[in-house]
Amino acid sequence: MIGIFDSGLGGLTVVRALMERLPGYDMIYFGDTARTPYGTKSRETVIRYSIENTDFLLENGASVIVMACNTASSVATETILNRYSVPVFEVITPAVAQALQVSTGLNLGVIGTRATISSGIYEKKLKIKNKKARVFSSPCPLLVPLVEEGWMNKPETRMIVKKYLHPLKTRQIDTLILGCTHYPLLKKIIQEKAGKRVKIIDSSLAVAGSIKNYVENNPEVNDLLAKKGETRFFVSDITEQFSKTANAILNKNIVLELVKK
Amino acid sequence: MIGIFDSGLGGLTVVRALMERLPGYDMIYFGDTARTPYGTKSRETVIRYSIENTDFLLENGASVIVMACNTASSVATETILNRYSVPVFEVITPAVAQALQVSTGLNLGVIGTRATISSGIYEKKLKIKNKKARVFSSPCPLLVPLVEEGWMNKPETRMIVKKYLHPLKTRQIDTLILGCTHYPLLKKIIQEKAGKRVKIIDSSLAVAGSIKNYVENNPEVNDLLAKKGETRFFVSDITEQFSKTANAILNKNIVLELVKK
Repeated sequence: MIGIFDSGLGGLTVVRALMERLPGYDMIYFGDTARTPYGTKSRETVIRYSIENTDFLLENGASVIVMACNTASSVATETILNRYSVPVFEVITPAVAQALQVSTGLNLGVIGTRATISSGIYEKKLKIKNKKARVFSSPCPLLVPLVEEGWMNKPETRMIVKKYLHPLKTRQIDTLILGCTHYPLLKKIIQEKAGKRVKIIDSSLAVAGSIKNYVENNPEVNDLLAKKGETRFFVSDITEQFSKTANAILNKNIVLELVKK
Repeated sequence: MIGIFDSGLGGLTVVRALMERLPGYDMIYFGDTARTPYGTKSRETVIRYSIENTDFLLENGASVIVMACNTASSVATETILNRYSVPVFEVITPAVAQALQVSTGLNLGVIGTRATISSGIYEKKLKIKNKKARVFSSPCPLLVPLVEEGWMNKPETRMIVKKYLHPLKTRQIDTLILGCTHYPLLKKIIQEKAGKRVKIIDSSLAVAGSIKNYVENNPEVNDLLAKKGETRFFVSDITEQFSKTANAILNKNIVLELVKK
C-alpha cells in the first residue's frame, strides 16, 4: 500500500490528488490529530513524531511512504531516508522542480508554517537547482487554524492572507509555492491576493505527480502495491470538527479510525 | 510545591496571578507545548494527557495540583479528583462563583475553546449555583492561535473578537467569563467589543484567589508548601516563539526546561 502521513488533516489534499492520478491504488493514511499542528513545534519534536508515524504505516502494510506534510518534509526527510529502506516521498522536491519549470523571471515566493520557513529548505533546494533563483519567504502560521475552522471564505481570512502575502508582492514574485498541504484549500484567495499573473504551485499536486511517475517507472515497486481501491484513514484523535474537515477536503464522507499516540 | 499544568503557555497567566497573590511560594509548571492545543481535541485525549501531566508534577515534588487549563478543567476534573489524593484546583468553579457574585441581571456569557464550550460545564455549574441564571456561550477557537502568534493588537484580531462576541452582545449579557487562560491577554479588546458595561471575569485571577484562600485556611497543606520563591518551568517542546510568548506573559525572561512527552 501507499502509506501517507501528516500532522493532521491537511495531508488529505495529497490523498485527493493521488486518488485522481493513481485511481484504484490502496492507501493507508495517518493524521496525527492528537498532536496537531507540527508547524509551530521544534525540529526535534517533529522528527520524533515523524519516526513514530512512519513506523505505524510500515507496521500496517505500507511499502511506500509519503510525508504529506511540509513541516515534516522540511525537517525530518534526512532522518526518515536514512532509517528506512522503502521508497520515501516528501513534498518539497516536486514543488521546487515544478516552480522552476514554470517561473518566467525566477522571482519565487514561498509560504509555509513557521517551522517550514525557518528551516530554509525551499530556498536551499531552489538555489541548488538554479543559482539565479531569487527566493522570498513568508511564514503564515495562522492559515492552518483558519482552514481547520472552515473559515475559507471569511473576510478576516482574506485580510490575513493579504497581510502575509504583502512582503512577497512588493518583491514582485512571478511564482508562489504553497509550502503547506492546507493552503490548496485557500488557493482562490491566495491567487487573488498574490495577483492573477502569479503562478501558484500546489505541493500536493506536485508530489502526487511525482509518485505517479515513480510508480510507472518502477514496476518492482508497482507490483508491491495493492490495487483494490481501498483506503483507510487513521487518526490519533477524533472530534466532530475533525470529521467535518476530512469530509470537506475529500468531498465525501469517510470513516476515521482511531489509533492512540 | 504548587504544581500547575496547562496545554501550553496560557496557564502562565495563572502563575502570574499566583506570584502576585502568594509571593514567595515555590511552583512547578508544566506546559504541554509538544501537543498543544487541547481545545480542539477530544475529551478522551485531553483526559489521557491530563493524567500524564499530573503524574509528572507529582513525581517532581508537587503537593497541590492546579489545572490551569479550561479545556482540561472542563473534561478531566472528575478523573483527576478520583485518581489522586492531593488537593486539586480547576479554573471553572472559582470563575463561576465570581461571575454570580458580580452579575447584576444574571445574563451571563461564556467564551472558551470548542472543547470547553461543547462540554457545557460552565452553563451546568452556573445553573446549579443559581437556577435563574441565563447562560449564553460562544466557542472562540481562533483566539488561542492569535495570542500564541502575539497578534494581541492587530485589526484582524479585533474583527474576529467582535464576530465571536456578536451573539452574546445581542443577548445583552451583563457579565462575561473568559473561559480560557489565553483570553486575559486579549482582555482590553474583549472589554471593548463586549461593551464597557459588561463585567469581565478572568478565570486565572479567580483560581489564584481561591488557591490563596485555601492555603490560608489549611495550615497542614500550607506547611507542605516550600516558600523559597523558586519556580521551574517545564515544557514538552521549546521553540523561539514559545520562549517569546512565555516571557511576554510573565513580563520577564524565564528559563524553559524540556521534558519529552
